[in-house]
Amino acid sequence: MGALAREGTVMREEERREAQAYTIRELEATGVVLTDEERAAIEVTDFGLGRLRETGLQLLVYVNTERHCAKELVLYPRQTCAEHRHPPFDRTPGKEETFRCRRGIVYLYVDGEATSEHACEPPGGVYTVWHEIALRPGEQHTIPPNTLHWFQAGADGAVVSEFSTASRDDLDVFSDPEVRRV
Amino acid sequence: MGALAREGTVMREEERREAQAYTIRELEATGVVLTDEERAAIEVTDFGLGRLRETGLQLLVYVNTERHCAKELVLYPRQTCAEHRHPPFDRTPGKEETFRCRRGIVYLYVDGEATSEHACEPPGGVYTVWHEIALRPGEQHTIPPNTLHWFQAGADGAVVSEFSTASRDDLDVFSDPEVRRV
Repeated sequence: MGALAREGTVMREEERREAQAYTIRELEATGVVLTDEERAAIEVTDFGLGRLRETGLQLLVYVNTERHCAKELVLYPRQTCAEHRHPPFDRTPGKEETFRCRRGIVYLYVDGEATSEHACEPPGGVYTVWHEIALRPGEQHTIPPNTLHWFQAGADGAVVSEFSTASRDDLDVFSDPEVRRV
Repeated sequence: MGALAREGTVMREEERREAQAYTIRELEATGVVLTDEERAAIEVTDFGLGRLRETGLQLLVYVNTERHCAKELVLYPRQTCAEHRHPPFDRTPGKEETFRCRRGIVYLYVDGEATSEHACEPPGGVYTVWHEIALRPGEQHTIPPNTLHWFQAGADGAVVSEFSTASRDDLDVFSDPEVRRV
């Protein structure tokens, strides 16, 4: 491994730790109490693009069985979760999920009539659905399975609870072929 | 309707409103942001026994589809949710649920080896399972479908998030034949 590659790896590890610390601060500011195991298990993904603050997501999975799942999603200011859908698997229609905003604002984009003056510009990548649903604290929206969607936090970041059927991140289908979730 | 019955009805309506107000205060103290519609939709059940503070439960249902469900449960100090199980229905094994404590302590009792020195005495009624799991903020436990369980809050009450498969309260099977959930 060359010096450059090693340097890159170190950078990403620092970025990951920074993102975990940010996630803990944001969750605690929302009133969420975490165990030490949960703090250590916070996931950070840059979707394989290497620009975490633009395209990325921080997650804490509370539970994920074959039948039900719950997570907290935390976003940096203006961070975007890349466009994707949850396809059918194991004779189920695929993941059905409810997003409930807890802190900040999250702009959710789903399939449907395009919103003419949308609040967000996506970062580089492939974005095809433009029906905007703005969620402020206490507001929520349920996304049917196999429906394209992406979301971006407002200027102060966002904390979003996700309630759903079983989650299989490895099966997610992204619109941008360069994106890798797992 | 006689004067006594009417007086009883008025009392219960006041009790219900008091319980809704308590629930709102507890949820807000936990950091939960509610919409006005949600505040008005808080459910209060005394399980048909007429002793709400002893045997009862306050709930806010965020979402309940045919596939996933999320609620907040709020308990008065030492209030007990009567023993019950969620039986199979519609070719599913029945409701599978995760309880996550957010505030206070909740003592959960499930089928399994009896805990010798348990923290709670149940109120009047039928209680048959005695395996105790104490949940403090940030701690959680998943209950398989069709498993008998009951729970009681500690001395300061409790706020508990519930993540689950579809919820069908009307199908709940209570150990005490006098209990009526719906």
